[in-house]
Amino acid sequence: MAGERQDGRVERGNRTRQLILARAAAVASVEGLEGLSLGRLATDLRLSKSGVFALFGSKEELQLATVRTAVAIYDEHVVRPTRAAPAGLGRILRMCERWIAYSRERVFPGGCFFYAALAEFDARQGAVHDAMAAAQAGWVAFVERRIEEARTLGEIREDCDVPQLAFEIIAFLELANGDSVLRDSPEGYTRAGRAILRRLRAEAVDASALPAEL
Amino acid sequence: MAGERQDGRVERGNRTRQLILARAAAVASVEGLEGLSLGRLATDLRLSKSGVFALFGSKEELQLATVRTAVAIYDEHVVRPTRAAPAGLGRILRMCERWIAYSRERVFPGGCFFYAALAEFDARQGAVHDAMAAAQAGWVAFVERRIEEARTLGEIREDCDVPQLAFEIIAFLELANGDSVLRDSPEGYTRAGRAILRRLRAEAVDASALPAEL
Repeated sequence: MAGERQDGRVERGNRTRQLILARAAAVASVEGLEGLSLGRLATDLRLSKSGVFALFGSKEELQLATVRTAVAIYDEHVVRPTRAAPAGLGRILRMCERWIAYSRERVFPGGCFFYAALAEFDARQGAVHDAMAAAQAGWVAFVERRIEEARTLGEIREDCDVPQLAFEIIAFLELANGDSVLRDSPEGYTRAGRAILRRLRAEAVDASALPAEL
Repeated sequence: MAGERQDGRVERGNRTRQLILARAAAVASVEGLEGLSLGRLATDLRLSKSGVFALFGSKEELQLATVRTAVAIYDEHVVRPTRAAPAGLGRILRMCERWIAYSRERVFPGGCFFYAALAEFDARQGAVHDAMAAAQAGWVAFVERRIEEARTLGEIREDCDVPQLAFEIIAFLELANGDSVLRDSPEGYTRAGRAILRRLRAEAVDASALPAEL
């Protein structure tokens, strides 16, 4: 009986933790990870401050847990739907479509969480910088593997410079997000889609396999 | 005599103001505009706190003056050297070279001031957001005019989609900056130069006029 009660308490604690982290990731996408405050999160979510402080020992711990939560949300919205498509050019297109939808639909209210938090922590040192750098490196490697796959399948030219193509695709997606959030306009998404298709057409073995629009 | 003494005081005040703002722009490029504190700037520069507070009424006033200072520094390092080159493809190349040098040489210690501050304020509302949006719009218009010039001179194809090309060039430059600051690596600058040249080659009337490398 004591065990059951304890399990219930642990589960409630986990649920509360998830609730706080989802809110923290949303706030950080607008106001930055430095803008996070355990006290304010408690007030926003009508939780006791002491309870929230007990779950996260320090602001840095909260920031690191928020980055992990954002990575999980990104996986759910971008990475997993991409893996669901068959490998090749189609999977690259799905990846770009999912990314644009993730930014456009404001999964995070401030647009891409990583765009905001990378610009905030890129020039600093410490555990949060390192966590963000690892998340970004993971994403770049994911994009490169999707291109590599398409090349192995013979859908992309043998002489394609894979890291270069990945750099260009990521550049288009990131500026589309930044431009959309800054100007509250969808124009950047259209421009990014056009730029990506143009770039893929130049690398595709059979360009007619690509759609006219993204 | 009283007039001279007053002139001297005004001039000293202006110099102090410039000193504070240069420091503020440098700090903000690493820690963000929200990270600015009049008290800390006074301590860093060994000035009296009351004197610094007298020059800037509020944190928002300091942030807005910092954005204006950053725009002036950007003009000096990127915009003016670009105008010094003859119009056409050569001026577009000079613009990209100057931008890469401005980021690579860390004119601002945290990399491009605007990359950092745009990501920080893009999803917020208020005077600082509006000042940043105006600075960004001015830069986009500048890039578009340089491309338009080259088209008018017959160096770029008549059917070039000017805002699209400007979007792509800016996307490459911004990711090069972000990548360089995050990973402390110059690789992104090489990638951006390669991507820009490839893109310009596709739009140039005489691609042989372009150099092999940027």
